[in-house]
Amino acid sequence: MVELTNEYIEEVVKACRPFASRGKVIDHIPDLDQSHLTNLGVTIVTLDGETYSAGEDQDNFSFQSISKVILLLMALEDFGKDIVFQKVGMEPTDDLFNSISNLEEYGGRRPYNPMINSGAIATASLIKGTTVEERFDRILDFLRKITENDKITMSEEVYNAECKNGARNKALSYFMESTGVLSSQESDAALDLYNRVNSIEINSLALAKMGCFLSNHGRLIGGKKQIIQAENIRTVKAIMLTSGMYNESGTYAVEVGFPLKSGVSGGIVGSVPGRMGIGIIGPAINRKGNSCAGGEALRILSRDLELSLLHDRNVRNL
Amino acid sequence: MVELTNEYIEEVVKACRPFASRGKVIDHIPDLDQSHLTNLGVTIVTLDGETYSAGEDQDNFSFQSISKVILLLMALEDFGKDIVFQKVGMEPTDDLFNSISNLEEYGGRRPYNPMINSGAIATASLIKGTTVEERFDRILDFLRKITENDKITMSEEVYNAECKNGARNKALSYFMESTGVLSSQESDAALDLYNRVNSIEINSLALAKMGCFLSNHGRLIGGKKQIIQAENIRTVKAIMLTSGMYNESGTYAVEVGFPLKSGVSGGIVGSVPGRMGIGIIGPAINRKGNSCAGGEALRILSRDLELSLLHDRNVRNL
Amino acid sequence: MVELTNEYIEEVVKACRPFASRGKVIDHIPDLDQSHLTNLGVTIVTLDGETYSAGEDQDNFSFQSISKVILLLMALEDFGKDIVFQKVGMEPTDDLFNSISNLEEYGGRRPYNPMINSGAIATASLIKGTTVEERFDRILDFLRKITENDKITMSEEVYNAECKNGARNKALSYFMESTGVLSSQESDAALDLYNRVNSIEINSLALAKMGCFLSNHGRLIGGKKQIIQAENIRTVKAIMLTSGMYNESGTYAVEVGFPLKSGVSGGIVGSVPGRMGIGIIGPAINRKGNSCAGGEALRILSRDLELSLLHDRNVRNL
Amino acid sequence: MVELTNEYIEEVVKACRPFASRGKVIDHIPDLDQSHLTNLGVTIVTLDGETYSAGEDQDNFSFQSISKVILLLMALEDFGKDIVFQKVGMEPTDDLFNSISNLEEYGGRRPYNPMINSGAIATASLIKGTTVEERFDRILDFLRKITENDKITMSEEVYNAECKNGARNKALSYFMESTGVLSSQESDAALDLYNRVNSIEINSLALAKMGCFLSNHGRLIGGKKQIIQAENIRTVKAIMLTSGMYNESGTYAVEVGFPLKSGVSGGIVGSVPGRMGIGIIGPAINRKGNSCAGGEALRILSRDLELSLLHDRNVRNL
Repeated sequence: MVELTNEYIEEVVKACRPFASRGKVIDHIPDLDQSHLTNLGVTIVTLDGETYSAGEDQDNFSFQSISKVILLLMALEDFGKDIVFQKVGMEPTDDLFNSISNLEEYGGRRPYNPMINSGAIATASLIKGTTVEERFDRILDFLRKITENDKITMSEEVYNAECKNGARNKALSYFMESTGVLSSQESDAALDLYNRVNSIEINSLALAKMGCFLSNHGRLIGGKKQIIQAENIRTVKAIMLTSGMYNESGTYAVEVGFPLKSGVSGGIVGSVPGRMGIGIIGPAINRKGNSCAGGEALRILSRDLELSLLHDRNVRNL
Repeated sequence: MVELTNEYIEEVVKACRPFASRGKVIDHIPDLDQSHLTNLGVTIVTLDGETYSAGEDQDNFSFQSISKVILLLMALEDFGKDIVFQKVGMEPTDDLFNSISNLEEYGGRRPYNPMINSGAIATASLIKGTTVEERFDRILDFLRKITENDKITMSEEVYNAECKNGARNKALSYFMESTGVLSSQESDAALDLYNRVNSIEINSLALAKMGCFLSNHGRLIGGKKQIIQAENIRTVKAIMLTSGMYNESGTYAVEVGFPLKSGVSGGIVGSVPGRMGIGIIGPAINRKGNSCAGGEALRILSRDLELSLLHDRNVRNL
Repeated sequence: MVELTNEYIEEVVKACRPFASRGKVIDHIPDLDQSHLTNLGVTIVTLDGETYSAGEDQDNFSFQSISKVILLLMALEDFGKDIVFQKVGMEPTDDLFNSISNLEEYGGRRPYNPMINSGAIATASLIKGTTVEERFDRILDFLRKITENDKITMSEEVYNAECKNGARNKALSYFMESTGVLSSQESDAALDLYNRVNSIEINSLALAKMGCFLSNHGRLIGGKKQIIQAENIRTVKAIMLTSGMYNESGTYAVEVGFPLKSGVSGGIVGSVPGRMGIGIIGPAINRKGNSCAGGEALRILSRDLELSLLHDRNVRNL
Repeated sequence: MVELTNEYIEEVVKACRPFASRGKVIDHIPDLDQSHLTNLGVTIVTLDGETYSAGEDQDNFSFQSISKVILLLMALEDFGKDIVFQKVGMEPTDDLFNSISNLEEYGGRRPYNPMINSGAIATASLIKGTTVEERFDRILDFLRKITENDKITMSEEVYNAECKNGARNKALSYFMESTGVLSSQESDAALDLYNRVNSIEINSLALAKMGCFLSNHGRLIGGKKQIIQAENIRTVKAIMLTSGMYNESGTYAVEVGFPLKSGVSGGIVGSVPGRMGIGIIGPAINRKGNSCAGGEALRILSRDLELSLLHDRNVRNL
């Protein structure tokens, strides 16, 4: 097993950066453009509090689908497993993340899981608060706490673009209203909240801290307080494992082997339970929506550091 | 954490047996009928060689879909990852295990994964041997070796029924021939081999041994010889985790949290890496195809013995 | 062949009224309730200007899907065949009238045809006028002209209900915006116009006149002026023939055999080219969305009066 | 309206032949190859017995999907409407002619209609006779009678190729067996009969005679005997109108406007009720499966001779 050092992470970044050319930077998010094509930031925070980082780890890009993890964590805390999974399933799907057909096929009921857009909008309807602003502020506070970063904030520019270009998500939201997944009171607010959370800006260090929080079973590093119940953390990680990487989730389960969630801005959060959190931002994404360079970095890290949950190294023997 | 004893397993069987009444015994398999409704056998074999067992652990029923694990292991050994995953994907699907639509939707190419019928038939085409008999004998030898049971054999009666009632699988096989997944030379033989392997009879002890072999990274208990390469074992377990329990795989990842594969005769094989193998046979299955009593037993075992890969107990700390 | 008289129509109404009990009156349209269950109005207007009528032919119910015929006629006149059929197809579909999946399957492009909801919303975007009100007034003027009834108007109450309960159609509209079928400028207005036109109230006489206008190739009875080009009339009738009766269109082509369009308020417009227009309102609809009593009336009328386009009686010999 | 003469048909052929270059000749039918790319035969037989013909009207190519018309006619005569339409529907579909998904979506029941492969195989199971040979001979006799051509026969070479390349149709047949549309006794025989009928060789004159028989309501020209009941003829023509031209049926209903059925060897049979039958063979087909040059010829003929059922010319006025 390779030793984890800053130099090693630098080598990984160097080796993976060329893979960016296999992808494209999404063109409708204001804070991203083709000039970021070969950017790659990789940060690891271990459970003993060490940080290893390299590349453009200061890049701040919008959260996008990684927000789905935060929404699910909070909905589970706010309403509990039973109510959450009445509204959204926990099964992987072979449909696209923004698919609407599966809502129709599925007899007009629950979205398959909270990691696809429809499922995340449904999850967003289960965040407590009297106004969208209040609900958003609760989410932001939580995120700042677990990343130990008070400067994390939403980009107004990205939010406005999400609203303007959000016809597909509007369609998902109203379709769920039409089938009773969301009430007519819930649909607009849930969509608005979803757009806001997607527009939070974050860098690879914050993502690594977030992963570390998951790996530490819902506690801050060195902290004893259970901020999120351990069972809810396990639930979220299990769903990340089966559904976190869009339609490559099965492949990542085989090739990387620990809970991950990606976003179309090229971010990925990874959690190696008991060991570390991993944060990656590499804006060039492949056709499935996953960071090209970031995905390669995960494969190398998993192999070199023996990170798969299924690896003997990572298994506690009797 | 509960202590693992024979008495404990007996209690689990007692507690779970009533759940059988929520399901039905499949009626087209000759060795099964409604008289087996409340049967439940649960066996655990730990990596240090202890066996704990209770209930109808002597019941011998046909392998059915659990054979998919064996087919995939052998295909990976025979042809390697690259060739296997050119013919079959590794992504979970929301379609039924015997679905044909996904072969058409998917542009007429690979089945989604080796844990659905089409995928397993495609995998069966990648078992080396000059005749179906020879290929089957290689599989049987392998299974006898890893279960340390030379008496395991195929039921002619079940095999004949599989052939007679096998119109759906014929359709899958010929459809794959029509789209080039299988050649016209391969399709009949692959289907025949698939029917044979599904007709092997097995009990909960043999399933537990099989799970133990997976948990021990491809070695017999106490053995040093790597019978299957560790990487192939990891690949199979990862696919079991995301796709092993039909359309409840995501739910089992959350609620049980380790690699499993079920069959419609009510069998389930489970692998808790580094710790144990679990074998269950409870013939009453629910609408998704999974053993009702067996599924409940897994939830209880996972909770009591802290078996989830995502549980702190099961995670090796730094 | 039976002789067409008022007495005959009365007999048809009497014979068909009991079929209403096989269906249900839709419960979300304000002007309709279960008290209308057995209502049935049947009116025939022949091309020589005679009117035959019986039953509740004074019932005024909302247009609903029959509006799709008017929208298509006007869009064809306003923009021509080429532009209309770039936005919407002319192929029948086996999906439901309010299906959204077909928009996704179809590569995110045109709705299958103008007789399903998505297709009609797309068609509505092709009605000329600077405001929704102006566009709606043009449609209302046209409808009043061809039915020779200046009192036809929109029900505010129905319109408000259409807007309030319109989540499914909102989803269709925004989905089409997301795939570029509609621009962000068009989607809201097209949906609003669609809701308005669906809320126009009409009775069986007006429907019969509308059918007669189609049967007379785009001219009023006795009129020489071509109000709509004959080619556009033929196009609309051909699409009614293949797609006018929801997912029973093929069955009606066989059993009735001339252009029809139904709505969920139980209305049906029929056109027997060269001979007559037929208007029916029978609010109890079957699971496919078609009037139970009205459908039976059409089968009887077609048989007794030899109305099928494919009947020798209705074919001009060499 | 243009006058119908041999010279006129020659002009049509000349004008349409270049459209063949937009298509391709199918490469797996033995009697067809790219040398036939620009072939085009057009024959019209009128109900008063005149024949007008031009181009390669002596080309004999295999029947392919046009056989579906004959199978449906005979099944209706043999078992009647009720039994036939319990096994196969009469609704148009937006799926491909060889689609298997619709059999699964449709709850595993009837194929949508008799003009798609699954529907035609189901229809073939309803042809009376004790052996496949006997059933085939009855079909051949019928076809020879209505085309007044005793030399029509099956190509052994085409039949062998159909069997060899028939994996898709085997899949359809076994899938229907698995869902109970066909019994295990029926499936192999129905498929074999289907393959045989598809392999009958025919030219544009025979197709025109066949169309003429349909146009003459089930009687030979000048004959008084009702060979097929008039109602069954109407049923078949109505289904041809809504579903006869693969996924362009709606477009042909609009642009041509009378019952048609095409095959992938480039043949088309057309029936203009009361007026004429049309036979076309132009082997270059487009992506939907319809003859490129033949389709163009139909559009021109329909326009010039005013053949649409919806045209005033073709409508018998009061």
